[in-house]
Amino acid sequence: MSRSVVAAMTAYTLELREAEIKLNQNESPFDFPRELKERVLARMAERPWNLYPDFESTALRTAIAKAQDLAPENILVGNGSNELLAAAIGAFVGPGTPVVFPRPTFALYEKLVTIAGGLPIPIEFDPDSGLLPLDGMLDAIAKHQDPVAIVCSPNNPTGGVLPEGGLEALLRSGAMVLLDRAYGDFDSLVAGFSRPNLVTFRTFSKAWGLAALRVGWLTSTAENCREIRKVKLPYSLNVISEAIAALALEHREIRDQNVERIVAERERVFAAMQSIPKIRVFPTRANFITFRTPLPLFDALWARGILVRDLSGYPRLQGCLRVSIGTREQNDAFLAALEEAV
Amino acid sequence: MSRSVVAAMTAYTLELREAEIKLNQNESPFDFPRELKERVLARMAERPWNLYPDFESTALRTAIAKAQDLAPENILVGNGSNELLAAAIGAFVGPGTPVVFPRPTFALYEKLVTIAGGLPIPIEFDPDSGLLPLDGMLDAIAKHQDPVAIVCSPNNPTGGVLPEGGLEALLRSGAMVLLDRAYGDFDSLVAGFSRPNLVTFRTFSKAWGLAALRVGWLTSTAENCREIRKVKLPYSLNVISEAIAALALEHREIRDQNVERIVAERERVFAAMQSIPKIRVFPTRANFITFRTPLPLFDALWARGILVRDLSGYPRLQGCLRVSIGTREQNDAFLAALEEAV
Repeated sequence: MSRSVVAAMTAYTLELREAEIKLNQNESPFDFPRELKERVLARMAERPWNLYPDFESTALRTAIAKAQDLAPENILVGNGSNELLAAAIGAFVGPGTPVVFPRPTFALYEKLVTIAGGLPIPIEFDPDSGLLPLDGMLDAIAKHQDPVAIVCSPNNPTGGVLPEGGLEALLRSGAMVLLDRAYGDFDSLVAGFSRPNLVTFRTFSKAWGLAALRVGWLTSTAENCREIRKVKLPYSLNVISEAIAALALEHREIRDQNVERIVAERERVFAAMQSIPKIRVFPTRANFITFRTPLPLFDALWARGILVRDLSGYPRLQGCLRVSIGTREQNDAFLAALEEAV
Repeated sequence: MSRSVVAAMTAYTLELREAEIKLNQNESPFDFPRELKERVLARMAERPWNLYPDFESTALRTAIAKAQDLAPENILVGNGSNELLAAAIGAFVGPGTPVVFPRPTFALYEKLVTIAGGLPIPIEFDPDSGLLPLDGMLDAIAKHQDPVAIVCSPNNPTGGVLPEGGLEALLRSGAMVLLDRAYGDFDSLVAGFSRPNLVTFRTFSKAWGLAALRVGWLTSTAENCREIRKVKLPYSLNVISEAIAALALEHREIRDQNVERIVAERERVFAAMQSIPKIRVFPTRANFITFRTPLPLFDALWARGILVRDLSGYPRLQGCLRVSIGTREQNDAFLAALEEAV
């Protein structure tokens, strides 16, 4: 009895397999420092649990604003950037709204556009190139009225980015641009843009190593934030996740060290993979590496205790796997297993 | 640049006022026991924060299923029942879908229906009666094709309920019924129904006293749960809220004692209010009391340190206030302030 567009959809799923080394969800391999965990949890035991969170998540929005040199009215926070993406799509995408996005990309975008009744306009591209299809997106934007563009740069699950000047070109096109920077911490692009047609999504789940807490934020103009807030559910973020994210921002060195270690390991693993036969590695600016192979490596790696992500279900990614960057030891184990399996 | 339906909407707001005694959000006045707080938080310090929550929230869904004598596939959990209501509306309400609901009721329903492009069909009723407009809803359902009905019983913000046999009649009508039981714990109706056209929403925010953690759940058939899950964002619930809710279910006596104390206080406060001149009290089965008055009591109470909810912005609730049931001391302070102000 559900709506026909929903009945026709498949659920977003994740194959649940156990493995000694889990490199399938682009998580940070570094846990939050124990001392900070205990400090914030001790404060949370004092806080009443029977009272709702602050209606506007003011403490966290203020902390993010300070860290980003913005004002709190330019920030919304939610349960992962997914919640904010869904709210922004609810605010800007209605029945028939054309929505341009690269393909392959994060599968959630097309699902949310479909649920909103929008018109998905996927721009297929060659994921091996490391570059997102800017020209194709601009062409499609020019052909449609009041379009929305969604772009994940660095792109999940391929690792590629917009070409230089690409964001600027998208913004000049006049499309409302939803820019997912979930993996932005691992890229060098400084995206301090504030434009009336730009909404940028960020997360504490990757570089900050707080995936368990599910906190994300968006930045945009105050007007866009006001409109998106109408769609977002009121006080959706719980007080504990909010307090942990705010504390994390006081310790920027945690994020910086995570990023430095993960980027260095990414370069090392990438170079090592390039010399392994029968795999083709895609250029990446994220915390993962995607590669193509004619061999049945997913099961071969799993048999050796390494769980990676099988991307075969994605368009243009037949025979592709994605490995998240782990600790040096995890990466060594992955490389050894890969060489053995090949 | 937002969609016209969103631009035309007003944001869900809450007047942020400080007061010594806060009876404006229908929170439980009883905090979660300190010893249990510390126990669960100690476990959370051990848990890695860099790894995502379980994809299916299996532990909490299993705990709820056990408590409700259902199977885990009959349960979905989310950040408050709001998140699940939004997902269910996304699954069942598309452009033009007729959605029948009483008015006045929780303002979020109409907002979510509007965002989904559905056709809101509000059934106005006399909130003083304590009964929701069953006949009006059934008439409207009969006149429309494939309708959805949303009903909050006990109703927020009026306190009334469906007449006896009302849920059964709604289910027989063939409409897809979304039943919000956020205040169901304070009512005696046992709603153990399982029907293909029923989705029931519950929350840990009221009777369980866990509003700060933002956890709700829904129960329905496995098929409905599968469809709603397609719309719901993946692993939206953080690991700490999930663990706290699961622990709470092991201590059902907390909820039972809260309910017993709140219902007893509700009856006492209701009786006391009936003897106060110039106010008209609405029958209630929830953890709050709504009343009508020609006097400017909101500010008069606030000046005496009591914050209640001003309902004047709701249709048919001009001159109405809502007071949440607090502790005995808080309620005594409210009654004294009310008598003084009148």
